[in-house]
Amino acid sequence: MDNATKEIIKNLVEGSTSAYVTAIGEDGYPYTKAMFTTIREGMKVHYFSTNLSSKTAKRFMNDSHACVYFCNANQISGLAIIGDMEICQDAYHKEMLWKEGDEQYYPLGVTDPDYIVYKFTGKTCNLWYRGKKEFDIEELNSL
Amino acid sequence: MDNATKEIIKNLVEGSTSAYVTAIGEDGYPYTKAMFTTIREGMKVHYFSTNLSSKTAKRFMNDSHACVYFCNANQISGLAIIGDMEICQDAYHKEMLWKEGDEQYYPLGVTDPDYIVYKFTGKTCNLWYRGKKEFDIEELNSL
Repeated sequence: MDNATKEIIKNLVEGSTSAYVTAIGEDGYPYTKAMFTTIREGMKVHYFSTNLSSKTAKRFMNDSHACVYFCNANQISGLAIIGDMEICQDAYHKEMLWKEGDEQYYPLGVTDPDYIVYKFTGKTCNLWYRGKKEFDIEELNSL
Repeated sequence: MDNATKEIIKNLVEGSTSAYVTAIGEDGYPYTKAMFTTIREGMKVHYFSTNLSSKTAKRFMNDSHACVYFCNANQISGLAIIGDMEICQDAYHKEMLWKEGDEQYYPLGVTDPDYIVYKFTGKTCNLWYRGKKEFDIEELNSL
């Protein structure tokens, strides 16, 4: 992949306050919802904070298959990362993502059992920018 | 559902030039991509024009389970419609969606065998607006 394409991907992901996260339900249907972006490790690992009691969390516990999609407002570019979602309930990940004001969602604070972290690890990518390109996520390790 | 909520849904869908469409691959992973909105019949049926040769079309031919997600730019509201995607290759649907300029994508015109129509029929909805609401798509028949 050339550096110009990498730059497009970096700008797309860094310019996105939300990503479109899809889980698969027990009924075999995909379920998409917008989630705020938080911390990432390169392009491969993306974290989200959420509620253990949510239906999406139940879906990922049952089936880890996930898609995290980034798209800019004018729809010129889009990036779908395909991979697996892990539910993290340990103190390390919960403290890593906790930020001031989160008490409004999780009244018991960082140890609130309803507060959990999704750790998404991507395997493959589809980029739409002047046509479609498919590639291995390892190509984006440096971003 | 109250009229104020219906109005929010109508504004959200009518204000969206794109929807986030998800298919499930043979590998069991969900694949999301942005697609331009076109014609709809109420909130239940949404049409998209696309290429028969695309991977997404192959996925829907293998598994009709789909999610069509609408989200406004400031992420205040989001609507996920869960349902099934049908591949239409007949003249009626192809002519219904064809518009001037589509020749740039389908050089053979409206009868181009690579030009097809997705007919999405929703069953259930998830609305995110000041909390999450789930409801049957039939409640939105009048919109």
